[in-house]
Amino acid sequence: MNTFGNILRLTTFGESHGPAIGGILDGFPAGVAIDFDHVQAEVDRRRPGAGLPGSTTRHEPDRVEILSGIFEGYSLGTPIGFIIRNNDARSADYDQLRHAYRPSHADFTYDARYGRRDHRGGGRASARETACRVVAGALAIQMLEQTGVHVMAWTSGVGPITGVQPAATGRVVTRHDVYRSPVRCANSDIAPQMQTLIEQARHKGDTLGGTVTCIISGVPAGLGSPVFGKLQASLAQAMMSIPAAKGFEYGMGFEGCTKRGKEVADGFGINSDGKVYVTSNWSGGIQGGISNGQPISFTVAFKPVATIPGEIATVTDRGDTTKITIGGRHDSCVVPRAVPVVEAMTALTVADALLEARCAKFREL
Amino acid sequence: MNTFGNILRLTTFGESHGPAIGGILDGFPAGVAIDFDHVQAEVDRRRPGAGLPGSTTRHEPDRVEILSGIFEGYSLGTPIGFIIRNNDARSADYDQLRHAYRPSHADFTYDARYGRRDHRGGGRASARETACRVVAGALAIQMLEQTGVHVMAWTSGVGPITGVQPAATGRVVTRHDVYRSPVRCANSDIAPQMQTLIEQARHKGDTLGGTVTCIISGVPAGLGSPVFGKLQASLAQAMMSIPAAKGFEYGMGFEGCTKRGKEVADGFGINSDGKVYVTSNWSGGIQGGISNGQPISFTVAFKPVATIPGEIATVTDRGDTTKITIGGRHDSCVVPRAVPVVEAMTALTVADALLEARCAKFREL
Amino acid sequence: MNTFGNILRLTTFGESHGPAIGGILDGFPAGVAIDFDHVQAEVDRRRPGAGLPGSTTRHEPDRVEILSGIFEGYSLGTPIGFIIRNNDARSADYDQLRHAYRPSHADFTYDARYGRRDHRGGGRASARETACRVVAGALAIQMLEQTGVHVMAWTSGVGPITGVQPAATGRVVTRHDVYRSPVRCANSDIAPQMQTLIEQARHKGDTLGGTVTCIISGVPAGLGSPVFGKLQASLAQAMMSIPAAKGFEYGMGFEGCTKRGKEVADGFGINSDGKVYVTSNWSGGIQGGISNGQPISFTVAFKPVATIPGEIATVTDRGDTTKITIGGRHDSCVVPRAVPVVEAMTALTVADALLEARCAKFREL
Amino acid sequence: MNTFGNILRLTTFGESHGPAIGGILDGFPAGVAIDFDHVQAEVDRRRPGAGLPGSTTRHEPDRVEILSGIFEGYSLGTPIGFIIRNNDARSADYDQLRHAYRPSHADFTYDARYGRRDHRGGGRASARETACRVVAGALAIQMLEQTGVHVMAWTSGVGPITGVQPAATGRVVTRHDVYRSPVRCANSDIAPQMQTLIEQARHKGDTLGGTVTCIISGVPAGLGSPVFGKLQASLAQAMMSIPAAKGFEYGMGFEGCTKRGKEVADGFGINSDGKVYVTSNWSGGIQGGISNGQPISFTVAFKPVATIPGEIATVTDRGDTTKITIGGRHDSCVVPRAVPVVEAMTALTVADALLEARCAKFREL
Repeated sequence: MNTFGNILRLTTFGESHGPAIGGILDGFPAGVAIDFDHVQAEVDRRRPGAGLPGSTTRHEPDRVEILSGIFEGYSLGTPIGFIIRNNDARSADYDQLRHAYRPSHADFTYDARYGRRDHRGGGRASARETACRVVAGALAIQMLEQTGVHVMAWTSGVGPITGVQPAATGRVVTRHDVYRSPVRCANSDIAPQMQTLIEQARHKGDTLGGTVTCIISGVPAGLGSPVFGKLQASLAQAMMSIPAAKGFEYGMGFEGCTKRGKEVADGFGINSDGKVYVTSNWSGGIQGGISNGQPISFTVAFKPVATIPGEIATVTDRGDTTKITIGGRHDSCVVPRAVPVVEAMTALTVADALLEARCAKFREL
Repeated sequence: MNTFGNILRLTTFGESHGPAIGGILDGFPAGVAIDFDHVQAEVDRRRPGAGLPGSTTRHEPDRVEILSGIFEGYSLGTPIGFIIRNNDARSADYDQLRHAYRPSHADFTYDARYGRRDHRGGGRASARETACRVVAGALAIQMLEQTGVHVMAWTSGVGPITGVQPAATGRVVTRHDVYRSPVRCANSDIAPQMQTLIEQARHKGDTLGGTVTCIISGVPAGLGSPVFGKLQASLAQAMMSIPAAKGFEYGMGFEGCTKRGKEVADGFGINSDGKVYVTSNWSGGIQGGISNGQPISFTVAFKPVATIPGEIATVTDRGDTTKITIGGRHDSCVVPRAVPVVEAMTALTVADALLEARCAKFREL
Repeated sequence: MNTFGNILRLTTFGESHGPAIGGILDGFPAGVAIDFDHVQAEVDRRRPGAGLPGSTTRHEPDRVEILSGIFEGYSLGTPIGFIIRNNDARSADYDQLRHAYRPSHADFTYDARYGRRDHRGGGRASARETACRVVAGALAIQMLEQTGVHVMAWTSGVGPITGVQPAATGRVVTRHDVYRSPVRCANSDIAPQMQTLIEQARHKGDTLGGTVTCIISGVPAGLGSPVFGKLQASLAQAMMSIPAAKGFEYGMGFEGCTKRGKEVADGFGINSDGKVYVTSNWSGGIQGGISNGQPISFTVAFKPVATIPGEIATVTDRGDTTKITIGGRHDSCVVPRAVPVVEAMTALTVADALLEARCAKFREL
Repeated sequence: MNTFGNILRLTTFGESHGPAIGGILDGFPAGVAIDFDHVQAEVDRRRPGAGLPGSTTRHEPDRVEILSGIFEGYSLGTPIGFIIRNNDARSADYDQLRHAYRPSHADFTYDARYGRRDHRGGGRASARETACRVVAGALAIQMLEQTGVHVMAWTSGVGPITGVQPAATGRVVTRHDVYRSPVRCANSDIAPQMQTLIEQARHKGDTLGGTVTCIISGVPAGLGSPVFGKLQASLAQAMMSIPAAKGFEYGMGFEGCTKRGKEVADGFGINSDGKVYVTSNWSGGIQGGISNGQPISFTVAFKPVATIPGEIATVTDRGDTTKITIGGRHDSCVVPRAVPVVEAMTALTVADALLEARCAKFREL
């Protein structure tokens, strides 16, 4: 199941240390103007070592090569194939892992499932595969932007440090503001604390988790397919498929569920041109699984990086105990790098829902 | 998208006040011994007014009629069709809702999406559809039980009241214990408080939300399909498709993500018969999207019931303001009734993953 | 895989002698005006013994009960559930088949696949399941008619008797003309011969096959999804899924493939309002897997009925030889009864393609 | 819909004159030994100009590059990504086709569907995409061979010339024999006639169609998923998705359907080790949509090549008449080159059914 989506479908392939990773985005409608530089720029935002504190020093150029589906600047409606070569693959670094299972990683479970695995750098389980999501997500973002739908995510928590995005307080925050911050947080009060905490963790040989929050604005009412394809269900699947994700909440979230019904009731009003709107947004922009025209907001929790530098006791696939040494070439906090991945998966989900909603009414045939 | 699952697929139909609701469970393997009484018993557990405090007084017998796919006590491998008649449908109660949109409900969004709706009792958006999930889930539970996999959920929070399930403290808790409790909580310290709180809310004309926690035990290592079909992604989609769900977390969850990596690292050991096992369970039984043989645990947050009794100001589909009066025939807290629904969706997800895992290795062809 | 279609999806269930057969049609758009009488009339056309020569004397009223998805005369966009009760099930007739395999039937293969089967009347393999296709197809026909697309099939061959439909010679033939003929053939030169041949076969205790030809007119250019969802590929799957189908051809068909390229080349012209049209139709209305605006024509071959009355030597599931006696309650030629099934599957395929084509272009978002 | 299959899923991409074509084969089980040379050899068999009479002189090296999913000689169970670069793309040859529609091609229909197209060499509609099917099919062939299932196709008709494959008369014919023949026909009586006919057509500037017949042997009983996933329905979809296919028949085919039931009845016998077998094979190896253990045979008709050299009158996308000149760089008969494509699609279909059948019974869990 390396495919995501129903009408707009992304299928990806690739092991961390094989010749390349890549994917096919099928069902992308014809006639979307495509900016290749934007696609590359999004991928660069996910790339290791892009000025982030505590980021892995593996340097992949991660050059996206789009192979089909776009012609003379516009999408053709045919599948968009793309690859990213794996250049900096020091496979020999991983010889000690041929039989050993890294704790809290997928080595053991891949063996349990498939009976064999590519032990180099996590193979298929490597978070490197998310670069393909960002490529496809960038295309979806372009399609959405041309429709007036905007996706923006940011680091809303690192370890115990959390804070409100300035957007929520009325100041305008753009994706540009977010990405200018090394930790991808436009709240200048907490961003420096986050950065310091990540650097401290790195020095201590420890790691951190955190949260990414995302807002989708400009979503028309009517997206989402009851009952199993509720918009929040698709978003939850999308987010929980990102490596290291441990939780998802939208709208009032876990905390709102401890409140009383009267405290979290959204009302309706009529705006100046006679259209119905929703007066508050405890619902998080979705009611009955269908968007209601309000911004959609959700938060995803990511666990602390499982790769902890140093010597670690573990076991092998032959049932022996062993010790392995994890070097320092790993992230100490992936949350900032997860931001573009959250955006990509969000854009793919919403673009799919947008296309799917075209089929809901007969009269528009 | 009224279908859930890949190999084991449930498709449901039915409006709250139409002739019937029902479904088709396709891909259910041949040869599973089926106990019809168990199916009916599970559905009764979800039924309104089953001794629960603050439950709606609508009395549906909810008699399940299985129409195909089972022959002489065993599944045939062919699709299992079933229906539940809608008997207690006081449609006239809903005349005031023909044009008015109930706040925090799906009336407006269904109109936005489809251009028309069945206004009686929420139509397709009614939580009544979850009865069909429980029917199919009961069949999946029977299949899983015959394989040694056990699913158990319980009410872990009502409003601000939360507590640990006794299971976690070493005492054995069974599904029977959970369902003996009116609030579906086997922790005798907090269950009475939950019950009192729900009754108070009912008297005040207010409503409550809460959380359901679920543990799946006996799951073999190897279930879950990378990268987009990670087991936690499928579970998240399943849970977030349940009406009123606002959040999902598994394993260490949101709170664990605020900790340091060294605090939440799971290790490996070798047990007495030479097999690898996982020594702790911060991962929640899943690593890299694939089950690792440990129990899988997750929690789902449900919002306070949106239907608040009394007169409410709202708007109509014609752009007018109006007032509607909501009667008292509604739940003040659905969390206890969500317990069997969580179990059903969990069982469907795991049974699907169990079948799907049969195709992962060649040598077992 | 009891589901057909991508956006418009029919899932069916039911064994021949279980309580009921039925289905769910999901993805049907909201706002289609629905005539229940038409649905029932279509099902009656498929019903055994509807005045057809050589038809089985099993008399099922085949009353369709629609349970959801339609409200006040219009489709809701929600799934349409329906059932047909099995009333005339003389199960005891089938006791001799509990262990014996009828030759050229599916008894043996169902056992091979599932390890068990409902031996009564073919169980799931009974052609009775096609009644569900006709129910769903009738809904699709109504949607298509409201869009200006018309589907018409007829018996184009019985045994060695074949002939051209009058339509091809310039006279107008309607579905009504076809269904007025007991053999569902509006060519008054050959229809009586077909009828006589079927009656002769019945008297001899033998059976016949034949062909059904179908024309879809009013199809807009642009339907069909390259490369694997070519319109002819979807039609072929649809037709070859009908019991007893042995062959499918469209446009120039098998015979046209023996000709030279210059003989079967279609050209283009410009019509009076400046639009491109195709000047001939060797292509059969589809080019590169996509409809070109011309009528789509295809033919399906159905084998002689496999149930031959009398005593037959065969084997049992225990590996013994045995003899069984097949009574006379079976069709001697199913081709006329296949006509509405071909129409139903055609309508479902085209309606699905019509919805799917809405997602091909961006600018119509 | 550029995806084929349910459990084993091939997704392809690529325009004829873009940077590359390629695909992802997902769901391929772990542990299949893979021979890369065999994959390349299969692709070479489809390649233009491989010693075939009347073949296009476009010379693509068609070097397959496998990018993932195979490690140290065995499949990993992860998706297998691959690309083939487009090297010999004389795009300027196609400038006259920027606005003109070639008759009997897909230029017009792609424009109707997508509103834009890559006009160079047919773009996505080019039969070049079938090279990707052959890559994936070669992997499926390897999997099937290791299971004892063998697929063999051959040219059974060119224009009006047809003949029986020697295999049917008792002599052993291998794939090697077929591919040694320039026209891919191991019947030495008719192969030279076919070759002469193709050469004559080329000299006359005309084209030919024909048929490919395929036999699958060693198929275990039990493959195929009722009711819409009948094995013949999946094979029909697979075959009719190949460019230029106009007809499909299996077992007794169109001709058998003109016979009487008693003439085409298959019986059952018990073999020496007590197992049930089918004594004749009018059914073509499939009963009730499920394989019965006999060889599965079918035939596909391909139309004469639509590209006829010379000057042709046609129209443009602006509604003008025009003339275009088609050069001589095209096949005059594609049937021999279709042979490996038929084998590839057959292998993918059967491998998918083989995996799917693992989920039919519970007791093998």
